Amino acid sequence: MKSCTLIESFKIGIKKSKKDAVCMKLSEKSNISLVTTKNKFAAAPVQLSKKHIKNSKTKYLLINSGNANACTGSLGMKNAKKCCQKISKKFNCKESEVLVFSTGVVGEQLPINKILNCIEKKIFKFNSSWSDAARAIMTTDKSEKIIKKTFKIGTKTIRIIAICKGAGMIEPNMATMLSFIEINVQIKQNLLSKLLKSISDRSFNRISVDGDMSTNDSVVLIASGEIDGIDFNRNKQAYKQLEKNILKVTQDLSKKIISDGEGSTKSIYINVMNAKNSKEAKIIATAIANSQLIKTAIHGSDPNWGRILVKLGSIYHTSYSIEKIILKLNGYTLFKNGTPAANYNSSSLKKSMQNKNIEIFLDLCSGKGSYDLITSDLSKEYVRLNSAYTS
Amino acid sequence: MKSCTLIESFKIGIKKSKKDAVCMKLSEKSNISLVTTKNKFAAAPVQLSKKHIKNSKTKYLLINSGNANACTGSLGMKNAKKCCQKISKKFNCKESEVLVFSTGVVGEQLPINKILNCIEKKIFKFNSSWSDAARAIMTTDKSEKIIKKTFKIGTKTIRIIAICKGAGMIEPNMATMLSFIEINVQIKQNLLSKLLKSISDRSFNRISVDGDMSTNDSVVLIASGEIDGIDFNRNKQAYKQLEKNILKVTQDLSKKIISDGEGSTKSIYINVMNAKNSKEAKIIATAIANSQLIKTAIHGSDPNWGRILVKLGSIYHTSYSIEKIILKLNGYTLFKNGTPAANYNSSSLKKSMQNKNIEIFLDLCSGKGSYDLITSDLSKEYVRLNSAYTS
Repeated sequence: MKSCTLIESFKIGIKKSKKDAVCMKLSEKSNISLVTTKNKFAAAPVQLSKKHIKNSKTKYLLINSGNANACTGSLGMKNAKKCCQKISKKFNCKESEVLVFSTGVVGEQLPINKILNCIEKKIFKFNSSWSDAARAIMTTDKSEKIIKKTFKIGTKTIRIIAICKGAGMIEPNMATMLSFIEINVQIKQNLLSKLLKSISDRSFNRISVDGDMSTNDSVVLIASGEIDGIDFNRNKQAYKQLEKNILKVTQDLSKKIISDGEGSTKSIYINVMNAKNSKEAKIIATAIANSQLIKTAIHGSDPNWGRILVKLGSIYHTSYSIEKIILKLNGYTLFKNGTPAANYNSSSLKKSMQNKNIEIFLDLCSGKGSYDLITSDLSKEYVRLNSAYTS
Repeated sequence: MKSCTLIESFKIGIKKSKKDAVCMKLSEKSNISLVTTKNKFAAAPVQLSKKHIKNSKTKYLLINSGNANACTGSLGMKNAKKCCQKISKKFNCKESEVLVFSTGVVGEQLPINKILNCIEKKIFKFNSSWSDAARAIMTTDKSEKIIKKTFKIGTKTIRIIAICKGAGMIEPNMATMLSFIEINVQIKQNLLSKLLKSISDRSFNRISVDGDMSTNDSVVLIASGEIDGIDFNRNKQAYKQLEKNILKVTQDLSKKIISDGEGSTKSIYINVMNAKNSKEAKIIATAIANSQLIKTAIHGSDPNWGRILVKLGSIYHTSYSIEKIILKLNGYTLFKNGTPAANYNSSSLKKSMQNKNIEIFLDLCSGKGSYDLITSDLSKEYVRLNSAYTS
């Protein structure tokens, strides 16, 4: 599939044997929007890119994997700047026209001389594919994550190409995930930002692997401007179509992240209904998603639903009547009217727990707040991966 | 060691092959105090015992393992009452003079007929030891937890005997742990309650295995009244001595719980200093203690300290300057002045990460709030144990 953004996937010298960097050259008509982590200790590249995008039209992106350049102090910031400078000199643009993104281990300085030398010497051909880019930004991901989609608005063919990485440390607010999305339309800056925020909140911010929120997460939406003549500000239906299609892509990417979550063997779909308000629904869904006990039970295909109620009862500042709660697991009602349900087929429930997708449905019958979230189970493989990451 | 409380450890019929119940007969002069879980869905036995202890002088305790009788609705409450009734008939006392405690799987009804039959038929000799009791209340504990200690107040020998259980689901506010402590002094009810609250807050409430707070946790302090003549209300020094010694016992029991935490291979001592206030210090210490990423890194003896700062940065409603933070791991300063420390011996740090006890010290230099907490690492064995608990 054709792309307006040009891509170079290459070895920048952080990882020993794999490609570990991507440079993207944006087409001239491109608009770009960025949402990032809410971690208070956002990494140097995140801080710098947020500044650059405010002040200049973005022309180049530089992405590296293997080192997050996070918690690296003023030296880390200097290094991020040096990367932008190097790219700007190489391609004869302003420093602020370059954005940088990093993912990998936290707290180690970039091997900056290696990186600068590599960029200096390299001949950029910009003939890599989005798949190549998806592979180069991987950390503990088992496979590259890419989705392409076309659809029509009127007679015009709209194209979405999206890649992401992110296996662990995923939590609402996009812990350790990077995503780059190109759409081939022209769309005004304000609306593009609104669009990105809206789709992120309903996809990447609705997944959690382990409740830790990274310092580096970023989602970039590039509107290449190739197709003009659709006024998305005025044509609400066209905007809705665009939003719906991108949302489908980012939701599918989010599902890919969860099913490739570190050591993940199952995806857990959590649906909290009728909480007192949506804030409480979110707190409850997140607490369930991050419970080690619930995640391990589901890993073992064990319908140990009591742990879900135990978790609900242990959340400070929320208070729900146990009499009102309806708890379903994979569609089986297991708790209602303050008491365990007796009349379900426990052997078919047990069988359903072997499924790849597990559904937790918690109706609190106490208001109108709802929230849904996808998480992964907790396996021995998660422990293996995460107990030997830096060393 | 002599005990005033008489003990019968026996098979009540919940577990297939092991002893799974304890009956304790309190001496006549005994006072008793109780602290319990703050889980909003406290189990039926917890609710009932709290009511009974308010209204009557306690004479008997009945404890079972293997089933928590939690989230079991009105039938669960009826069953808890039936247990008290049965004991009260057996020993010719009032129903409210009996307290019941349960630990084990949540959401299943007690096999109440089995239990009642068993108590009916059983001849109680009350010749078991505290060690026998410690074994009978175990769930996934690998070994029984008991501490005995004597010390002098003036010329009088004070004796503490304490047992507990609790391997997983441990979190401040005592998730899934039970503890029974006897001291051989006479002490007024009010002061006994104050004493129990004070020592629990500084021991059992300072440990966390997995951040889940159980529905059943209870700590019982029995003052047998054997030794009278010390006026703990007036003699502040005697009270302090008593408190210090019980605290030492409960802190040591807490350490036993952590080092026997489900699949635990290491104990992690977390010390958060100089937060804006103690509430924030507690939130931060707890967040670190419950981070899967930090726990797995430490399990793998990996000094991946970046994950600690990432966690701190991700906590909502707290805000600390990264410039002020001092982070030490096993005594090695790893982060200071907003930047990773460079001048430590990384090979000795790595070696120290093999230790059984790991120390995380986080000085926020922003106020006077402090909090300390002990947690365990997260191992494959934890996953194995918890993915196959009910089934």
